[in-house]
Amino acid sequence: MKIALGQMEIIPGRPDLNSAAMLMMIAQAKSQQADMIIFPEMAIPGYLIGDTWEQPAFLRDCEYWGNKIIIASDDICIIFGNIAIDWNKHGDDGRPRKYNACFTAYQGRLWGADNYPYPFRLKTLLPNYREFDDARHFYSTQKLANELGVPVKELLQPVHIEIKQRRLSLGCIICEDGWPDDYSINPTQLLAEKTPLDLLINISCSPFTAGKNTKRHRVFSQQAKRLSVPLVYVNNVGLQNNGKTVYTFDGCSSIYDQQGQLILQAPAFKPELSVFSWEHCHKALPVPNDTGIDSICHALRYGINGFLQAIGMDKVVIGLSGGIDSAVSAALFSTVLPPDQLLLVNMPSRFNSQTTMSLAEDLASRLRAWYTAVPIQTAVEFTANQINGSIVKNQAGKQLTLALTPFMLENVQARDRSSRVLAGMAAAFGGGFTCNANKSELSVGYATLYGDQSGFLAPLADLWKHQVYALGRYLNQTVFGQAVIPEGVFQIVPSAELSAQQAVDEGKGDPIIYAYHDYLFRSFTEHWNRVTPEDILNWYQAGTLETNIGCEAGLVSRLFPDTKSFIDDLERWWRLYTGIAVAKRIQAPPVMAVSRRAYGFDHREAQNQPYFTAAYHEMKQVLLKQ
Amino acid sequence: MKIALGQMEIIPGRPDLNSAAMLMMIAQAKSQQADMIIFPEMAIPGYLIGDTWEQPAFLRDCEYWGNKIIIASDDICIIFGNIAIDWNKHGDDGRPRKYNACFTAYQGRLWGADNYPYPFRLKTLLPNYREFDDARHFYSTQKLANELGVPVKELLQPVHIEIKQRRLSLGCIICEDGWPDDYSINPTQLLAEKTPLDLLINISCSPFTAGKNTKRHRVFSQQAKRLSVPLVYVNNVGLQNNGKTVYTFDGCSSIYDQQGQLILQAPAFKPELSVFSWEHCHKALPVPNDTGIDSICHALRYGINGFLQAIGMDKVVIGLSGGIDSAVSAALFSTVLPPDQLLLVNMPSRFNSQTTMSLAEDLASRLRAWYTAVPIQTAVEFTANQINGSIVKNQAGKQLTLALTPFMLENVQARDRSSRVLAGMAAAFGGGFTCNANKSELSVGYATLYGDQSGFLAPLADLWKHQVYALGRYLNQTVFGQAVIPEGVFQIVPSAELSAQQAVDEGKGDPIIYAYHDYLFRSFTEHWNRVTPEDILNWYQAGTLETNIGCEAGLVSRLFPDTKSFIDDLERWWRLYTGIAVAKRIQAPPVMAVSRRAYGFDHREAQNQPYFTAAYHEMKQVLLKQ
Repeated sequence: MKIALGQMEIIPGRPDLNSAAMLMMIAQAKSQQADMIIFPEMAIPGYLIGDTWEQPAFLRDCEYWGNKIIIASDDICIIFGNIAIDWNKHGDDGRPRKYNACFTAYQGRLWGADNYPYPFRLKTLLPNYREFDDARHFYSTQKLANELGVPVKELLQPVHIEIKQRRLSLGCIICEDGWPDDYSINPTQLLAEKTPLDLLINISCSPFTAGKNTKRHRVFSQQAKRLSVPLVYVNNVGLQNNGKTVYTFDGCSSIYDQQGQLILQAPAFKPELSVFSWEHCHKALPVPNDTGIDSICHALRYGINGFLQAIGMDKVVIGLSGGIDSAVSAALFSTVLPPDQLLLVNMPSRFNSQTTMSLAEDLASRLRAWYTAVPIQTAVEFTANQINGSIVKNQAGKQLTLALTPFMLENVQARDRSSRVLAGMAAAFGGGFTCNANKSELSVGYATLYGDQSGFLAPLADLWKHQVYALGRYLNQTVFGQAVIPEGVFQIVPSAELSAQQAVDEGKGDPIIYAYHDYLFRSFTEHWNRVTPEDILNWYQAGTLETNIGCEAGLVSRLFPDTKSFIDDLERWWRLYTGIAVAKRIQAPPVMAVSRRAYGFDHREAQNQPYFTAAYHEMKQVLLKQ
Repeated sequence: MKIALGQMEIIPGRPDLNSAAMLMMIAQAKSQQADMIIFPEMAIPGYLIGDTWEQPAFLRDCEYWGNKIIIASDDICIIFGNIAIDWNKHGDDGRPRKYNACFTAYQGRLWGADNYPYPFRLKTLLPNYREFDDARHFYSTQKLANELGVPVKELLQPVHIEIKQRRLSLGCIICEDGWPDDYSINPTQLLAEKTPLDLLINISCSPFTAGKNTKRHRVFSQQAKRLSVPLVYVNNVGLQNNGKTVYTFDGCSSIYDQQGQLILQAPAFKPELSVFSWEHCHKALPVPNDTGIDSICHALRYGINGFLQAIGMDKVVIGLSGGIDSAVSAALFSTVLPPDQLLLVNMPSRFNSQTTMSLAEDLASRLRAWYTAVPIQTAVEFTANQINGSIVKNQAGKQLTLALTPFMLENVQARDRSSRVLAGMAAAFGGGFTCNANKSELSVGYATLYGDQSGFLAPLADLWKHQVYALGRYLNQTVFGQAVIPEGVFQIVPSAELSAQQAVDEGKGDPIIYAYHDYLFRSFTEHWNRVTPEDILNWYQAGTLETNIGCEAGLVSRLFPDTKSFIDDLERWWRLYTGIAVAKRIQAPPVMAVSRRAYGFDHREAQNQPYFTAAYHEMKQVLLKQ
């Protein structure tokens, strides 16, 4: 038997284009005599489409295009994901009942209704954490079981089908169903308990996260081995987003044999039809590791390219400060766009050093992109003069004189660069401009709203500062094979250069001490059970802080001579992280996600007051008295 | 028996302050000899706190403060909402198991464990639509029932308690449990079936939505009547938000007698302890109507005030164009802030008319606020000169000359006003500046990013243009009792005044025809089953469009002489609504919600491509051929 893995690019919200792509792959599979082709979860509608699920016309359209696929199944079995609608029932929101479903079509009709209330299978485990909102839209097997008054396991039925005189029992599950560890139900276990399965099929729409595939290989390999059944995993490629957060889908569709060995793996981030024949002997493949900066670089380049295509943008302007973030951003975009579609702009005020200006120009030259320097000093002084000392009056004739402090002038510079120069330059160049903020900055609002926090996309905003450096090194060493990003960019102190207090040539820079704060902020955001100052103090007291947050040993005592300075620092950043930084993130550009906790829709937050627990206050008292 | 309704202000994410507020109300209730005091859902943690639920330290803190309340229940029964944690079990996300729970404390301990697995009651219906994310965080009664292997109804048990030698059976439910229409389970029905209830208690944390209370009175009154049991509804006041969307909570706690008559109603938007004695005779109160602009005005004023307090801002700058949106925004803020904390700024370019400049100054004078005019023409010309005709080069020595079109210059003006002038003025004045965009504009991206779409809050962004006018009229007539907003503001044509094509004195203005598009856009966003061009064409063909979207009869044929012009208009706005407007909304300020579908977290959306269904294309062909 020959199986084709339809690792397609899904375009979210485009049933017309997706079904066309499927029909092409179906024709290709037929021409290669495949008996079966398997497509990803939600292959027709896409998965991350916001509340588009609430449009009945869109749902009807998904059914319409789904039927075209069913018709194409004359002499090939087609397994595919689509939304399934029971128009006679409603969901808990009162809208038409929707299921995240897996369809099995063959000989022009659907199979699987012989032992099931519907001629399709449902996703049983609906993820409702991180960026996922499954329970918002889809009705689960559990709810259906409750409604029908049967146990859930009765609804976990294989699809029986006869292909070329061979009766097959297919265990069709959807994405999260294969990751049951935290749930009270294990769908594959229940499926396999009642009938011996010939094949376990997991159709997924699973976004890239650094390290996900390493874990997936472990989990799925064990699953196949334990049930002693081959497992086929089909995942899509492409980009999907939740507005605030953009996800790449890595593909990497795989087959595991019944010993749990990986025997086929489709490429990462590439649409490809893999045709696999069980008749041949297959040797076990090495399991690739996707935890490193190389995987992240791959995802970002693929994501940037895909995002530009998706929004129809082919020219990009990047503000180049001479620092690491904008350098890495420019280098990344240069791997995706031809140099004449990339414009790099250095915008010095009187606080910018010759050092960084030269580094910016040098980088632009090495990237062969368009380059210009647009000084902002005159405009900034005009604004400062227009506001500082200006008089406002009221109807009673009273007067008030406004004054700008040096700190306010820092923000004036940042806004002048982005909202005045870059936005104007981007329009004139025919494209958009990027936001080069990293995750450390975004965590504590160390970026100016309508200034350097602006842009059409924040490609680095899910990378901690140390990852930005690592990415820069990787780009030079591996992608370019030469020092495209000048060594000086790695060597200068990170600095906003917005005041005399931030002079890079004097080694003055950011207030964030990345070697420590990167890891502190990561514990606030990325630890599954999220860390707060109470936990940090506990660990500080127990001497396990560095181990727990993962920073360099000995760093904390080197940075903070006493408990008070440690606590002051902790409270300062916690207040920013849960305070003004939230207000800024609400208006931040879309973030390209690579971690398992990106800002935006994955990291949902309210603009509430910074808070310290009662236990924190108590422990602080005790520590300060010691 | 005396019952106190603890209609408190909940401060989200502040268990310390909330429990302090509760202890004060408890003392007050004791001094009035109340036998029982009832607090809202999630009274201790707050309800909309993003993913703060993922911090174990925060959860422990909620338990800590909850215990203080239990201790205070020595001689009064205290019913209150809090998060309940089962540290020995986990949720579907692998994190500690959390329940949205109702606690009944009396004589210093919890009651209700005699017939239940926990000494508290769980929310059974977890809303997972609109702005609600209950299923993301809280474990439901259904899941617990599955886990325990018992039917759900077995877990719907009243709390038996003895107060002053009187045995009571209390039906404790939480918010959504009282709105079961779309669910397969009716918690109150199941509760009442097994034991006669003495009292049905619904603790809620229910945000204001225009018309919600009118519906709530109907639903809850029927509930009390059908079960023949008095119903006490306790809701909080205050503000809570999901980052992108800010909600006011209206309170309006109520008691219905067993005939379903409203016999007590606490005030809207005001913390208040209402002590109610069953011994007295109570006459039925009239049911207030909350569907009008008066309710919306009340919610907005309360919301603006609360938002300023919550973020610690006491001074506000508003850009005043002379048009209706900024005028209404200024008028609203003037009802909340003293005039010397409000600065109004008119920022004319060469395209602004004397008419609107005079209207702006006139309004500022009537509001007695600070006022100034900051012309932007010089700065805009500086920017235009700096970019237009500027030359960029590449490493090979090639040159490219940039050019700004008149359309780009419109955006330069808008950004100059907000990001340069208003942001700078706001900093110098010591406050923030507002975004005055309305819902019609936000729907189709008719606002400039980093320009008039910027600000710390968009108070009018959940109002259609016709509602902004109605609110202006209401403010003049009812709130101020005089024409504070000059009549001219209502009379001029709505216009951005960014080019000669938008000259108000020549009657030239916005491309949006509000009398029709307000209703068209509303059907896209607010209809429960959301409308798309396919539905619109269907209705157009059937002659029911105006009825279905709710605009004036006869308008469509007047506006569109033929089908082609109708379709062109429809496609133009649909493309904007699902295209560039999404990109802009991702970076929009927080929206103050008043409708049952506000932009932001309520209206989740992906930045995908505009789409027309197959049925739309087909129908369009047919219509154009006719």
